[in-house]
Amino acid sequence: MSDISSFHDHISFIRSQTEKGLARIPLKPNLSNYFYDPIDYVLKGKGKRLRPVLVHLAGQVYNASPDDLMKAGLAVELLHNFSLVHDDIMDNDSKRHGKPSVHFKWDIPSAILTGDGLFALAQLSLVGLNPIIFQRFNEVALEVCEGQGLDKQYENNTSISMDEYIQMIGKKTASFLGLCAELGALVGSASQKESDQLYKFGYNLGLAFQIKDDYLEIFGDESLMGKSLGSDLDEQKQTVMTITAREDDPNKWSKFTQKKKDLSQYKSYFESNHIKEKVEGLIEDKVNIALSGLSLISEKDSKHLLEYAKLILNRKF
Amino acid sequence: MSDISSFHDHISFIRSQTEKGLARIPLKPNLSNYFYDPIDYVLKGKGKRLRPVLVHLAGQVYNASPDDLMKAGLAVELLHNFSLVHDDIMDNDSKRHGKPSVHFKWDIPSAILTGDGLFALAQLSLVGLNPIIFQRFNEVALEVCEGQGLDKQYENNTSISMDEYIQMIGKKTASFLGLCAELGALVGSASQKESDQLYKFGYNLGLAFQIKDDYLEIFGDESLMGKSLGSDLDEQKQTVMTITAREDDPNKWSKFTQKKKDLSQYKSYFESNHIKEKVEGLIEDKVNIALSGLSLISEKDSKHLLEYAKLILNRKF
Repeated sequence: MSDISSFHDHISFIRSQTEKGLARIPLKPNLSNYFYDPIDYVLKGKGKRLRPVLVHLAGQVYNASPDDLMKAGLAVELLHNFSLVHDDIMDNDSKRHGKPSVHFKWDIPSAILTGDGLFALAQLSLVGLNPIIFQRFNEVALEVCEGQGLDKQYENNTSISMDEYIQMIGKKTASFLGLCAELGALVGSASQKESDQLYKFGYNLGLAFQIKDDYLEIFGDESLMGKSLGSDLDEQKQTVMTITAREDDPNKWSKFTQKKKDLSQYKSYFESNHIKEKVEGLIEDKVNIALSGLSLISEKDSKHLLEYAKLILNRKF
Repeated sequence: MSDISSFHDHISFIRSQTEKGLARIPLKPNLSNYFYDPIDYVLKGKGKRLRPVLVHLAGQVYNASPDDLMKAGLAVELLHNFSLVHDDIMDNDSKRHGKPSVHFKWDIPSAILTGDGLFALAQLSLVGLNPIIFQRFNEVALEVCEGQGLDKQYENNTSISMDEYIQMIGKKTASFLGLCAELGALVGSASQKESDQLYKFGYNLGLAFQIKDDYLEIFGDESLMGKSLGSDLDEQKQTVMTITAREDDPNKWSKFTQKKKDLSQYKSYFESNHIKEKVEGLIEDKVNIALSGLSLISEKDSKHLLEYAKLILNRKF
């Protein structure tokens, strides 16, 4: 069996164990179906469980106990779902993982309470682990909230700088992936220095992931992504692409965006003005910083984390 | 100085220390005013800080460290405010502590995120305390969510039983007061048995408090309460009064409520059918169970907790 297929088997196993773990969370639907039905619905959703996978892969480097990794993995998945349910209300998104979002299927009060319940369940999943895990988990939970606050704040701001944008995605998305890698290390036998490095790996991987997301919104493959691209452009939403173009040549960009343009015109602007290239360079930079976070780990032990990085970055869709 | 005025001085001191503690919570408004402005607004609200007061009074019985009590006290106050902000959205309440509620002053997305942030800050306030505190805190946070779920579920149900109602207020309100008393004990040197007893004290005090609330909605003093009474009756809202009357004589109650009645007619029904008396007896029962939770504590040490019980029960308004 090749390394890659063994990697895929490995993460399939983590995923299926995570699904089983989620199904074992004690819900009391008889007590209050108002509260527990939507929680059950969320836990049965088709998430990719990328966050628990990262917790397990990082933890395995440091010989972490599988039971403890399961606790931490479920906690991050519950925290992730908490933020999805609440963000869907805030952003008025009606679909999640191909199903109606909670506030759309039930109503806003239900969905608020569902998120709150998932947050409390996430905390309870950490019971029995080292207190430092509880602390880091909630420090990052607060950062994710801050990131969502910045995202809302920047919604109608067409002049935010690249630094501000990176800070926002750093808090909203990257810090969470940093946490996952760090938690795995902390559940295991990692030193403070090693767990900091793992955070750095996850954090910068998260930045690269989010920047690539913006990039694929323009240069992705519509048929593979199953959606039409460039929708962000119509709404004047700021992304790494538009901010890079604006900061590169404000006058030229301002002139270009005065009139409505179609996706192919954007593509050709980004290509001929080397914006595409610059963003590709930025992604590469973040990946390189991420990989430097693995420098304390032997080549053999870091293999799965490298495969994981490839998995979440090398998507064409 | 009399015992009572010394008690009032004592809790005034706890309150002012709590206010100072809330003001010291590190907020980063420069980072995201979308996120931090409403949190700051909530923390400056005029709450009575009854929950931190209970944490401190219980903890002082067990020689708890003032710094640790402050952490636990701030955590329960933050958790309380989290649930108020989210409940106000769910119940569409536009006022809180005499000021516009968060979702009314800002909007629903802001208020959702504000509550989430308060929940995360509550968790962080527990850092450094015994892990059992973290566990109990979140077990009760989940119960409070369950209680809110039951409350929403029962909103239009005019046939819920007294047992169901007591379960609902038990989870939504009483478990929280139970937690406050228990946390004080746990922060101090209390044994498992002692902290269980303190939970019992707070829990039954909470039940008595909530039942008295329903009672005062009919038999309170309008001028002292600063609002018109009996508004629950118009909305057919189930309270301890209406459930007691219904369970006592379903046919008579059903006949009585067929036509719209005014508050004085309800009063005279509750009086002449001994419903008033029965509910007074129920409150007394819960108070007695609460006081039995103090049986392991010497008379001298339980003085402040007894004063606290009087404080929250002997309100005419």
